[in-house]
Amino acid sequence: MENTNFLFDITATEKNARAGVFHTPHGDLLTPVFAPVGTQATVKAVTPAQLEEIGASLVLSNTYHLYLRPGADLVAEMGGLHEFMRWPHPMLTDSGGFQVFSLADTRKVDEDGVTFKSHIDGSMHRFTPESSIGIQEKLGADIIMAFDECADPNNAAYIQQSMRRTHAWAERCLKAKTRPDQALFGIVQGGVDSDLRRQSAEFISSLGFPGHAIGGLSVGETKKEMHDTLDVVNAILPTNKPRYLMGVGSPEDLVNGILRGVDIFDCVLPTRLARHSAAFTPTGRINLMNAAYAHDHSPIDETCSCYACQNFNRGYLRHLIVAKEILASTLISIHNIQFLVSLVKRSRQAIIESRFESFAQEFLESYQPRRKRGD
Amino acid sequence: MENTNFLFDITATEKNARAGVFHTPHGDLLTPVFAPVGTQATVKAVTPAQLEEIGASLVLSNTYHLYLRPGADLVAEMGGLHEFMRWPHPMLTDSGGFQVFSLADTRKVDEDGVTFKSHIDGSMHRFTPESSIGIQEKLGADIIMAFDECADPNNAAYIQQSMRRTHAWAERCLKAKTRPDQALFGIVQGGVDSDLRRQSAEFISSLGFPGHAIGGLSVGETKKEMHDTLDVVNAILPTNKPRYLMGVGSPEDLVNGILRGVDIFDCVLPTRLARHSAAFTPTGRINLMNAAYAHDHSPIDETCSCYACQNFNRGYLRHLIVAKEILASTLISIHNIQFLVSLVKRSRQAIIESRFESFAQEFLESYQPRRKRGD
Repeated sequence: MENTNFLFDITATEKNARAGVFHTPHGDLLTPVFAPVGTQATVKAVTPAQLEEIGASLVLSNTYHLYLRPGADLVAEMGGLHEFMRWPHPMLTDSGGFQVFSLADTRKVDEDGVTFKSHIDGSMHRFTPESSIGIQEKLGADIIMAFDECADPNNAAYIQQSMRRTHAWAERCLKAKTRPDQALFGIVQGGVDSDLRRQSAEFISSLGFPGHAIGGLSVGETKKEMHDTLDVVNAILPTNKPRYLMGVGSPEDLVNGILRGVDIFDCVLPTRLARHSAAFTPTGRINLMNAAYAHDHSPIDETCSCYACQNFNRGYLRHLIVAKEILASTLISIHNIQFLVSLVKRSRQAIIESRFESFAQEFLESYQPRRKRGD
Repeated sequence: MENTNFLFDITATEKNARAGVFHTPHGDLLTPVFAPVGTQATVKAVTPAQLEEIGASLVLSNTYHLYLRPGADLVAEMGGLHEFMRWPHPMLTDSGGFQVFSLADTRKVDEDGVTFKSHIDGSMHRFTPESSIGIQEKLGADIIMAFDECADPNNAAYIQQSMRRTHAWAERCLKAKTRPDQALFGIVQGGVDSDLRRQSAEFISSLGFPGHAIGGLSVGETKKEMHDTLDVVNAILPTNKPRYLMGVGSPEDLVNGILRGVDIFDCVLPTRLARHSAAFTPTGRINLMNAAYAHDHSPIDETCSCYACQNFNRGYLRHLIVAKEILASTLISIHNIQFLVSLVKRSRQAIIESRFESFAQEFLESYQPRRKRGD
């Protein structure tokens, strides 16, 4: 097992886009791949059986949340995250870095780590590179992440200092890691400064990680800045290891990321939007709360093969939303996850058939993105 | 079709308990049967596919709620309730009577009908026997109910007047009914007064309904009063038509009802309890929020074949509850519905094999009911 685990085979390429296979102890990931997010050891409102029916292959869970509740020791005692949440397929945990900087209060960053206050009960905690790896080893995902600092992209002066700290922490994470059945990915930071991104990609690449992540994007920068950063970083990251664009994203971000050589994505967007009644369609998002859908006999997306679209019409979904029924979240989540999983799968097939560029162009022309993220 | 619809074949009897088959346009109901409740055209937190996997065969929906939202005309335009909520199996709607008296405000009852205020937006509405049947014909369930008054059981003086009104309304419902593909059931009222119940059972039986319901129970009376009332009523109701005990109930109520000749049950209990973290087990209810379950590796019920028990342990379910995850409601609802559906199916099999009395005794000895209803 260990000999083949975490090898990355490139099946096909088309310009910078790649179709590959990443081998993990819980199965092969066909890339590009989109991972729905199961923050608290559950993809919100969706069962593992429904995720399998959707065709999801990788699920991400959040170290920060699981550390606070129910605690990494409990998850370990339950046999690890796969067994606890009954997802027998590949899993990924983040390092807790991003959440500490985005969710927790009263944090204090020093060279050794971060002290923070729980968003749940206000209790004080501390993460270091070593403790983040220790927690992730207890959780037991196939892919674990280096502990990094995701600095405010608007604070240019701080970005460089933060990047150097992230680099030092990456080396400490590598040293701290003990489990051979987990792949530790390094994270490239550097804001939207192309010099810093270049330095970061070179440094992180030099450490010998089995995969690399691009952090600090989709945090308020423009689409052009995101794309330029991807171009800079992916020109440096080795081609024979998977590239993971963290926390991204929207349908157009996925296609633009794949065009620029990204292999792995994750985002809360499909499930978060679902809980706010918004659904993806091939021409853009629609909000099913809208009164216009009350009498609509058509499914969310005529071309979609998900359980929601194969069974329920927009009028029914709108009724569930207005009546505040849980089933609305479940059905729209199923559709939205399937939309992204399917988009990425079709991209993979298009790369294999050397027609991804036209596939991407066609998709980006018909899909009208929102001007701003969020809902 | 019309010739065989709504015939009730008795497969086996054991003392007062019966195993039968009730033929409906959407399939045969094997009785005794327990119907989960889909108040707003959805069994809360559960998909139709999950209900099928559970083995549920009959779903009840509430006329009062659907009339107010999304409206009976919209449901009709969508092809009726079966098509709207995608439940292609037998369905039952109540008449709205019970909800008007339990949920709505500022009601005024007169001989012709009831004026009430919507619990959603305070708007004023009126139900009559004729309008209730008209709404239920638009909704299109297989079994529809006569519009009745469920009087306060503590107001003995009013019970008789209310029962007479219910009788007059039953006759008007029969006259108002037009669809041949729906079975209209009459409802026996009379509180816990055995003379009134006897009068009501005799009168309602005389009207030629294809099935009979026993209303006004499980509204605060003692278990003994419920059982005595069932004995009085079922001694009078014809044996060749199904008997439906409305709004009941708990596991012990189902077994006690079957012992007394009831064929059909419905109750919100399994899904409502689930949303309050309570789960049925063969020895009684447990509340999975309890800290004692945090480290519990066992499923809710070792003997249960539902998706929740086959996959998830109590420790995980408790985590979902504490983390306020929707999946908790879904998984515990699946288990609780399966528990009642399976209890009733096993009762049926026991009747067929002439061992229901010992099955019931064994179940009632091991299952410790709560002293009071609700959670």
